[in-house]
Amino acid sequence: GFAKIDHHREMRKGFPEVIFCQGKTPQQVKEIALHMHKNGSNVLGTRSSKHHFEAVKEAIEEADYYEEARIIFIRNTVVNKAKGIIGVVAAGTSDLNVAEEAAVTAELLGNTVKRFYDVGVAGVHRLIDKLDEIRQCSVLIAIAGMEGALPTVLGGLVSSPIIAVPTSVGYGANFHGLSALLAMLNSCACGVSVVNIDNGFGAAYTASLINRIGES
Amino acid sequence: GFAKIDHHREMRKGFPEVIFCQGKTPQQVKEIALHMHKNGSNVLGTRSSKHHFEAVKEAIEEADYYEEARIIFIRNTVVNKAKGIIGVVAAGTSDLNVAEEAAVTAELLGNTVKRFYDVGVAGVHRLIDKLDEIRQCSVLIAIAGMEGALPTVLGGLVSSPIIAVPTSVGYGANFHGLSALLAMLNSCACGVSVVNIDNGFGAAYTASLINRIGES
Amino acid sequence: GFAKIDHHREMRKGFPEVIFCQGKTPQQVKEIALHMHKNGSNVLGTRSSKHHFEAVKEAIEEADYYEEARIIFIRNTVVNKAKGIIGVVAAGTSDLNVAEEAAVTAELLGNTVKRFYDVGVAGVHRLIDKLDEIRQCSVLIAIAGMEGALPTVLGGLVSSPIIAVPTSVGYGANFHGLSALLAMLNSCACGVSVVNIDNGFGAAYTASLINRIGES
Amino acid sequence: GFAKIDHHREMRKGFPEVIFCQGKTPQQVKEIALHMHKNGSNVLGTRSSKHHFEAVKEAIEEADYYEEARIIFIRNTVVNKAKGIIGVVAAGTSDLNVAEEAAVTAELLGNTVKRFYDVGVAGVHRLIDKLDEIRQCSVLIAIAGMEGALPTVLGGLVSSPIIAVPTSVGYGANFHGLSALLAMLNSCACGVSVVNIDNGFGAAYTASLINRIGES
Amino acid sequence: GFAKIDHHREMRKGFPEVIFCQGKTPQQVKEIALHMHKNGSNVLGTRSSKHHFEAVKEAIEEADYYEEARIIFIRNTVVNKAKGIIGVVAAGTSDLNVAEEAAVTAELLGNTVKRFYDVGVAGVHRLIDKLDEIRQCSVLIAIAGMEGALPTVLGGLVSSPIIAVPTSVGYGANFHGLSALLAMLNSCACGVSVVNIDNGFGAAYTASLINRIGES
Amino acid sequence: GFAKIDHHREMRKGFPEVIFCQGKTPQQVKEIALHMHKNGSNVLGTRSSKHHFEAVKEAIEEADYYEEARIIFIRNTVVNKAKGIIGVVAAGTSDLNVAEEAAVTAELLGNTVKRFYDVGVAGVHRLIDKLDEIRQCSVLIAIAGMEGALPTVLGGLVSSPIIAVPTSVGYGANFHGLSALLAMLNSCACGVSVVNIDNGFGAAYTASLINRIGES
Amino acid sequence: GFAKIDHHREMRKGFPEVIFCQGKTPQQVKEIALHMHKNGSNVLGTRSSKHHFEAVKEAIEEADYYEEARIIFIRNTVVNKAKGIIGVVAAGTSDLNVAEEAAVTAELLGNTVKRFYDVGVAGVHRLIDKLDEIRQCSVLIAIAGMEGALPTVLGGLVSSPIIAVPTSVGYGANFHGLSALLAMLNSCACGVSVVNIDNGFGAAYTASLINRIGES
Amino acid sequence: GFAKIDHHREMRKGFPEVIFCQGKTPQQVKEIALHMHKNGSNVLGTRSSKHHFEAVKEAIEEADYYEEARIIFIRNTVVNKAKGIIGVVAAGTSDLNVAEEAAVTAELLGNTVKRFYDVGVAGVHRLIDKLDEIRQCSVLIAIAGMEGALPTVLGGLVSSPIIAVPTSVGYGANFHGLSALLAMLNSCACGVSVVNIDNGFGAAYTASLINRIGES
Ligand SMILES: Nc1ncnc2c1ncn2[C@@H]1O[C@H](COP(=O)(O)O)[C@@H](O)[C@H]1O
Ligand SMILES: Nc1ncnc2c1ncn2[C@@H]1O[C@H](COP(=O)(O)O)[C@@H](O)[C@H]1O
Ligand SMILES: Nc1ncnc2c1ncn2[C@@H]1O[C@H](COP(=O)(O)O)[C@@H](O)[C@H]1O
Ligand SMILES: Nc1ncnc2c1ncn2[C@@H]1O[C@H](COP(=O)(O)O)[C@@H](O)[C@H]1O
Ligand SMILES: [Mg+2]
Ligand SMILES: [Mg+2]
Ligand SMILES: [Mg+2]
Ligand SMILES: [Mg+2]
Ligand SMILES: [Mg+2]
Ligand SMILES: [Mg+2]
Ligand SMILES: [Mg+2]
Ligand SMILES: [Mg+2]
Repeated sequence: GFAKIDHHREMRKGFPEVIFCQGKTPQQVKEIALHMHKNGSNVLGTRSSKHHFEAVKEAIEEADYYEEARIIFIRNTVVNKAKGIIGVVAAGTSDLNVAEEAAVTAELLGNTVKRFYDVGVAGVHRLIDKLDEIRQCSVLIAIAGMEGALPTVLGGLVSSPIIAVPTSVGYGANFHGLSALLAMLNSCACGVSVVNIDNGFGAAYTASLINRIGES
Repeated sequence: GFAKIDHHREMRKGFPEVIFCQGKTPQQVKEIALHMHKNGSNVLGTRSSKHHFEAVKEAIEEADYYEEARIIFIRNTVVNKAKGIIGVVAAGTSDLNVAEEAAVTAELLGNTVKRFYDVGVAGVHRLIDKLDEIRQCSVLIAIAGMEGALPTVLGGLVSSPIIAVPTSVGYGANFHGLSALLAMLNSCACGVSVVNIDNGFGAAYTASLINRIGES
Repeated sequence: GFAKIDHHREMRKGFPEVIFCQGKTPQQVKEIALHMHKNGSNVLGTRSSKHHFEAVKEAIEEADYYEEARIIFIRNTVVNKAKGIIGVVAAGTSDLNVAEEAAVTAELLGNTVKRFYDVGVAGVHRLIDKLDEIRQCSVLIAIAGMEGALPTVLGGLVSSPIIAVPTSVGYGANFHGLSALLAMLNSCACGVSVVNIDNGFGAAYTASLINRIGES
Repeated sequence: GFAKIDHHREMRKGFPEVIFCQGKTPQQVKEIALHMHKNGSNVLGTRSSKHHFEAVKEAIEEADYYEEARIIFIRNTVVNKAKGIIGVVAAGTSDLNVAEEAAVTAELLGNTVKRFYDVGVAGVHRLIDKLDEIRQCSVLIAIAGMEGALPTVLGGLVSSPIIAVPTSVGYGANFHGLSALLAMLNSCACGVSVVNIDNGFGAAYTASLINRIGES
Repeated sequence: GFAKIDHHREMRKGFPEVIFCQGKTPQQVKEIALHMHKNGSNVLGTRSSKHHFEAVKEAIEEADYYEEARIIFIRNTVVNKAKGIIGVVAAGTSDLNVAEEAAVTAELLGNTVKRFYDVGVAGVHRLIDKLDEIRQCSVLIAIAGMEGALPTVLGGLVSSPIIAVPTSVGYGANFHGLSALLAMLNSCACGVSVVNIDNGFGAAYTASLINRIGES
Repeated sequence: GFAKIDHHREMRKGFPEVIFCQGKTPQQVKEIALHMHKNGSNVLGTRSSKHHFEAVKEAIEEADYYEEARIIFIRNTVVNKAKGIIGVVAAGTSDLNVAEEAAVTAELLGNTVKRFYDVGVAGVHRLIDKLDEIRQCSVLIAIAGMEGALPTVLGGLVSSPIIAVPTSVGYGANFHGLSALLAMLNSCACGVSVVNIDNGFGAAYTASLINRIGES
Repeated sequence: GFAKIDHHREMRKGFPEVIFCQGKTPQQVKEIALHMHKNGSNVLGTRSSKHHFEAVKEAIEEADYYEEARIIFIRNTVVNKAKGIIGVVAAGTSDLNVAEEAAVTAELLGNTVKRFYDVGVAGVHRLIDKLDEIRQCSVLIAIAGMEGALPTVLGGLVSSPIIAVPTSVGYGANFHGLSALLAMLNSCACGVSVVNIDNGFGAAYTASLINRIGES
Repeated sequence: GFAKIDHHREMRKGFPEVIFCQGKTPQQVKEIALHMHKNGSNVLGTRSSKHHFEAVKEAIEEADYYEEARIIFIRNTVVNKAKGIIGVVAAGTSDLNVAEEAAVTAELLGNTVKRFYDVGVAGVHRLIDKLDEIRQCSVLIAIAGMEGALPTVLGGLVSSPIIAVPTSVGYGANFHGLSALLAMLNSCACGVSVVNIDNGFGAAYTASLINRIGES
């Protein structure tokens, strides 16, 4: 009884409440998941370790685990497919976890996702090579650590809105993602808005809301 | 010849390059404006003082000035009207300049705008009273200084994407907008993304891109 | 002999000195506890691990341990019951430890405590549902991490003083509780004062002093 | 029509809405004041310059100005007198404005106030000399800049709750009040809670709520 | 007699001591300049206002002033021309002062300078258009404010060393140049080193040393 | 051969070079110690773990270890006794390691040391009780974490110079000692100077230099 | 009557209370000065503008003003001369005000002072040239802005205690003196302790206490 | 297929792409290394643990590991030897890893390297003793933690460009390298530019580019 699950929101937003597993015990996550599952909701758990998953799996056979994305998912109702494509554009190999958190979340929320990985701006031709495909997306999620320049360069090349995700990848004057965060907030490109450091989930949720504007 | 104006972008994004007037001399702003004007572009200048406007007005008779929004505008081509509504929701009277920068920018970019001002969360009934109207908007811009809680409370009540704008309104441990900025980046509501402190223009530009998704 | 225990304070404030266990060895905690115990004081140890407790338990049979609250307690004298109620209002499941530290401390100091957990502002109806009960409290302790908006929203709905406790729950631009701390210090609601990040104990102690004003 | 005044709050909390004048034009302040005045509310404006006052005075003859406190006040209804005393304890001459903001606010909210000024801890005998008088207060407001040690020393000497107000007085590594703010948040004394840097008003409002607990 | 001028350095480095005028009185700058001038040194004053220049001009007829660069110069000995070209690449119109400080300093130190202004990365084609010319430079100085992405993108396109200069151009989460500084220090491109915020002079001095390596 | 030991300094300052063990391997520490030992110097190693000590002990039989102080010492020459007393005043039990590092260092450098522990300012009578003894010291080292008020209160009560040592003891808005550091730098008491967070060694070294002024 | 002057301190420390003029009105400074003057104390006012001085001068004919040091002084009792010399060592011309504040304060407190100005470490021979004279001082005050390296280099060359004063001289990543402050706190030289940014007065006061150790 | 290796860069810059191993799994590093190796590139992996190396070694027999430098290297093509010397100057024993990362990288990139270790400025004679040798280098890399003064002192003594590397060596107010970073960015010596904290690799890459200027 320690967690009041917000069933209003599912109706209001078309998506279930989401469990942020980090900092919860496997036992706590299992109980929340069970409660939502019995209610017939889709269950989505982010930042979950294998231990979280194992506890849930024990109780709910059909639970799935996306390892790189660190996501637990249990399907109970089918979400209708959104029309537009969400593009997930990531700067480096080290940003993989955050990128997968974004991509998998977006897919589970019913969107078609295209991944464009390892197209960091220090070799801008890699981004330009992919431009035609990238321009077909309705919304873009741009993920980068270190100097966080990717959303700015992207913003000058496309005309869709960009959700920028700074990552904590780097060291020293990176200050755990501060450098990328500040760079993205100060982007001189138009159409860029920013979510928390490493928040792939939040970016995907927002992108999905945007991708579904106009649905009734 | 000191500024290379980016005419590609107008074609790419459907909107003209924008002049950030702050830190430029009135003379510099006038020259850039004139160059764009002769090219037949719409000219939009943000963060412009009266001095900037006067310099531009001297050279271009049809220039307009939105005082509270601190915006110069010269219409040269008509932008077609977007379908959805952009709601501009602001917490306090002191956030007025930023709110107007957002609202006027969104209007000039061809959107219908509804203003919901002075609905700060310390009196949450003020927000709830407006909820029906707010829920009719496709995209929301939520503007707040100090503790920056507005986008979070709003995010729990609506299902449209929210662009959050922290303002530098406050003093002391506000640290020129840092408190609101961090609060918004850490919002536990879903669907919130953030732009720079006081960046009403950027929020409106992004909101307009979102509002026009699906246009061809 | 390494710690001078402050027996004046017990007389002055009606409550014993408190042992902050974190950073002390189990052996040190045991010795301080024993010394206080022999003096006939109630012994309260905060931030204690199980190891601390075990060392104390070995020496003092009647010692109790509150696991979620991380508190050791040994009752030696009975404190008279205060009249008003202290309400402990917490935003999320992850704030549980801090909330329990506050609630248990307040109880041990002789107060009646009501717990209102998982009523975070991203689903403001959860808070509003509890309002009648919350309004019956004399003093409120409001606990939240991430964007720390709970005390502000609460402050607009009640007329009792609120002690706000920011927690370090979150990640990225949360900066270990800084986001919630700054948000609470900048609250635009009246009647909110703030204690250190994760300081459930300090909030409860202050709330108890307030709850006992006017006792003689 | 730009500001929705929160009349609920007066009923709820027994005190009127308060105007934060800083950052508003004299014209805006006058309009809000007039609106509240016509409603029969007491009008309290903080951080007001002489210019703000003059604009209000022009429209409302009976407006008063407390220069050191930077407060505008217009009495419309009488508040009943609270029983306990609020003590305002300030460390240095330079903290005078903040101390007066606290003291005058507390008085206008119907409290008896005692001022203890220039009792900074670098000469602790000054504080100890006043101790008997200070101990007669129900609630204390402790105001200090620089190293902000006053509330801690006070907290060891009294048994009433203390609202600590860090001030921006100082230079260099004071970082505009950060040193005093952090010191107060980390106070090793019990019973201390903290408000924003220079927030004399907020401290007084909270102190007044505490001083009135148990009133019906 | 208050300033010991470092004549060793001229011999050691081939360039004179430099006067940092900001924070000095015009009188102080004049005296230092006169002393150096009488010694037969070239005199270079940076961050000089018109007032500084006028004081110097009064005493030394042949003094020159570069207004945009805010530089005073008095030629006494001719420096031999360096072979390579120094390219000064700047992101925006607002970075002009810093860019000119760099360009003029480099010229006065005997280098051929090419200016590439307003080639910010939010319109990356502007940079790519200039690439052939940029690649002919031996050393590059890359100047940018806001998100500071220019040196990174440049670093992926050229093979000469890049001295990056963050500027304080921007607002809000720019924190007076911090965003660009951190971005540049965290550049994922190779061959980029960084000088202080707005330090056009320092970048040019370093670039000149590099450009003259191998001279005897 | 990787460390050039500074034998000049021993002659110059009357004390040997000191090994900062933290971050060095036991093997590195042993080699440096051996080299100094063979030279006939006294060897002092700070921040040494037991592992460091064991490595040194293996090679140099007469090495001593002060566990709470985390100091290795090998006596080779006798230092003459200084006249004055150094007082080490510490606020809480948790500051013990830093206090011992200071006290032991001062003793090894030939000073008479008096320890005054657990006299934190939240119970100022504890400090006042010890005042007569404290006033007999020539130099004081004042050690405190959290709000770091001890040196300020002490500075108002004594007339000897005070070396203040902030400690990292605390949590939350303590930010690893920042709160105490800033408080001490902003002390409104005269005669206080500050060393790095947790730097008991540095405080003792400085205190010893002061205590020996006038020796020939 | 707003300021309780601390006459105890004069007796205790041998020096009068000091007025920090900055942030006080000329009228307030005059009143405090008069009160002290009538008591027969020496009056020392720091950070005083000409306006402060003029107000004091009007009331007390014999008041003196040290312009570069920004100090007001009124002699009422003669302090006996200390034996040792205090050396004031400053890095650059721009540090002059802070250096003079230190030097004049030390002189007024009865010490012999030697000034060593413009001996910054970027031309280390300037410092080495003065070494013989510097080594004759009992205590050193080392003043530097920007990278703040002077006390470290000095600390390796002398055997007297060094009080380091960081100055706010610089720009950009200097962050108003933070760079020099952190550098000095992290000095790898022994015998260095630090006071607040720009606190020439505090350094001199401490140096004077040290210089008088052993006096009876 | 998760990493797009940038073969253009090898041609463009004369050096291969570099693998930043930290934060990648041994498996990921092995795959990237293999791919580059098969392409005939030289393979350079930085920040690699022994685990990374072992995974690579298993797949590519000729892989080498430089333990102190934490570098994996596989030679496939010979780089022609550069003419000038790169000097690596390091302040303390604790900076060894970073210094070796710089020195080994520079060697692998085809440069002659001279190491000058343990010449920190707190014993400036150690640096001066080496000056003749240091002056024979074309480019210098200056590495220091704590107060980071080395590049400044060096900059006053030599006429070659200096790449400064702040290290995270230290504790307390060092803030993980911030003190050294800010000191280096604010160096009052000319010719100093800075790379990220602990970025020995980046310094060496830049130094190598500079050392090869003029090669064709
Ligand atoms: N990875 C994530 N990052 C940020 N917020 C999240 C994440 N996952 C879930 N959330 C949010 O956190 C809320 C759940 O918090 P809790 O009640 O503590 O489980 C959800 O409703 C989401 O809004
Ligand atoms: N108020 C604003 N805030 C943030 N960015 C802006 C603003 N106004 C204009 N911009 C951006 O700044 C660019 C112009 O910069 P500049 O070339 O310096 O005039 C525009 O293309 C916009 O992307
Ligand atoms: N959880 C806590 N958070 C903050 N302060 C505490 C806590 N527990 C105890 N204290 C305070 O720390 C003091 C004890 O410190 P010490 O002498 O180090 O044990 C007590 O008297 C309390 O004022
Ligand atoms: N614009 C500048 N930015 C940074 N350092 C400068 C600048 N101009 C001059 N300098 C340095 O500052 C030193 C002079 O400082 P000062 O003795 O105060 O005039 C010169 O030797 C240069 O190394
Ligand atoms: Mg890659
Ligand atoms: Mg309002
Ligand atoms: Mg929840
Ligand atoms: Mg005073
Ligand atoms: Mg431009
Ligand atoms: Mg204690
Ligand atoms: Mg100079
Ligand atoms: Mg060494």
